[in-house]
Amino acid sequence: MVEDKTVKVKVPGTTANCGPGFDSLGIACNLYNELELTLHKKGKLVIEIMGEGAQNIPCDGRNVVWKSIQYLLHRANVEYQGAYIKMLNRVPLSRGLGSSAAAIVAGLTAANYAIGNRFTSQEIFVMATDIEGHPDNVAPAIFGGMTLSILRKDGEPECLSFFPKIDLQLIVTVPEFSLSTKAARKVLPVVVPLKDAVFNVGRAALLVGALCEGKTEFLKHAFEDCLHQPYREKLIPGMYDVFAAAGENGALGAAMSGAGPCLIAFTEKNGDTIGTAMVAAFKEHNVKAKYLLLTIDKKGACLL
Amino acid sequence: MVEDKTVKVKVPGTTANCGPGFDSLGIACNLYNELELTLHKKGKLVIEIMGEGAQNIPCDGRNVVWKSIQYLLHRANVEYQGAYIKMLNRVPLSRGLGSSAAAIVAGLTAANYAIGNRFTSQEIFVMATDIEGHPDNVAPAIFGGMTLSILRKDGEPECLSFFPKIDLQLIVTVPEFSLSTKAARKVLPVVVPLKDAVFNVGRAALLVGALCEGKTEFLKHAFEDCLHQPYREKLIPGMYDVFAAAGENGALGAAMSGAGPCLIAFTEKNGDTIGTAMVAAFKEHNVKAKYLLLTIDKKGACLL
Repeated sequence: MVEDKTVKVKVPGTTANCGPGFDSLGIACNLYNELELTLHKKGKLVIEIMGEGAQNIPCDGRNVVWKSIQYLLHRANVEYQGAYIKMLNRVPLSRGLGSSAAAIVAGLTAANYAIGNRFTSQEIFVMATDIEGHPDNVAPAIFGGMTLSILRKDGEPECLSFFPKIDLQLIVTVPEFSLSTKAARKVLPVVVPLKDAVFNVGRAALLVGALCEGKTEFLKHAFEDCLHQPYREKLIPGMYDVFAAAGENGALGAAMSGAGPCLIAFTEKNGDTIGTAMVAAFKEHNVKAKYLLLTIDKKGACLL
Repeated sequence: MVEDKTVKVKVPGTTANCGPGFDSLGIACNLYNELELTLHKKGKLVIEIMGEGAQNIPCDGRNVVWKSIQYLLHRANVEYQGAYIKMLNRVPLSRGLGSSAAAIVAGLTAANYAIGNRFTSQEIFVMATDIEGHPDNVAPAIFGGMTLSILRKDGEPECLSFFPKIDLQLIVTVPEFSLSTKAARKVLPVVVPLKDAVFNVGRAALLVGALCEGKTEFLKHAFEDCLHQPYREKLIPGMYDVFAAAGENGALGAAMSGAGPCLIAFTEKNGDTIGTAMVAAFKEHNVKAKYLLLTIDKKGACLL
């Protein structure tokens, strides 16, 4: 066991669902949070935060990064009373870009390296899913690429990560307002028409097949969803108009990023034109927004 | 236009759904129906049938192959009053192996070649889906391989066909009794729990990803379904016991083939052991069955 060693990790922001893949698909983006961690056997907890959330993330025992560190240390049966934690956050909070998953995965990954890399990625994945409650954002944050996650009947998560053969640009439109995942879950129905389930099953399969096989021509209808977006539309003014603006400007498809309010469009080219059009469409609905032009991260959480 | 030319085509039997991919996924099998067609401007319709269904398929105007031929000729705006049709059927009827799709695709494909190959595969696919009512069996019958089909919002079917990187053996257990797709559709609910939809979306995506990327280790839970099989279980005595027998003998997974009653297991090896165990499990429930050891057809419907 290495004491007082400082480790530094970076973890990607993530976008879940990708249209039809509700609670299943995820993509890691090249937008990173960085975390520096030094564990102390005795002493205090000191947390410094720069960037996104610097004003409102708690810097005490309630901090999610610290809680995740403690979760892993408890699993490893080791104890540290104090720590110096320095966070540089680039993933915006409560926007649907996996800020909570990034914090959890950063804490777990840093703590794991700090105690000598005792746990495998799959074990980190199981812990992160347990803390987050669902695997769809923590999976790409850990494994990178595009991820296909399920919860097995025994409760253990499984994830296949792959890198699409299509060079996808991700245009993430970030509105000024935030939305809690909890609120976005509340509007979902308990039962859905079987035909809507079939609609999404077919499109999720087609989306994965087209990305694996490099067949762009099949993406035009593959990002469609009717299991969650129609119910959440009312939470994001102008959502379908923003999708339409993306499509009219050449996007292959568009979707809510996770539980929103970020909206994401997918394209091979003209990302700036599409982003500009999406921001303008939001403005028509009196929503101020900006866009980020991102690509897919290949590595997931890693040591810096 | 070529008159009185004889064309001969072969069309694969198909298995749809593959567990989680209800109404979306399909696989073409190396079990073929052959069709010989000679069109006559004048004269009678003569139909000869050998093999499966020779006793009960109508040999007059009600014949599905002939109806499909006429459908295409009508679209092409040409008229033939008579035909000589010779069918050699290897796909068993009303068992969930796409006999109806094979008949439709055979008729359309043969007629298309007979009039000089005027229609593209996509056009044949649109016609076949219109006649059959859903794309999941006609897609693999036309395109071969594993197929991912959707119905677009404008009603037109789309299909991506690919060949899995895993060398899958298909063990199809064929019980003695038949089951109509109509009866098997009647037992399905109109609404399903959202969590069941998510269950299938994740598994369908994982199944396609694992097959495209050649990752056998992810197939163990990827053939599971809860959108249609639990409701249809009562129509097939011992279904889950047959699945269990397949799994205990090394199968990667098992599923209903289409709407049943054939049950299909997927494996890389030991197909005969698995097939024997599945037949024995059926026997425990007083169902007489045989098994076919098949592989994936690569070509789909083609000229002989």
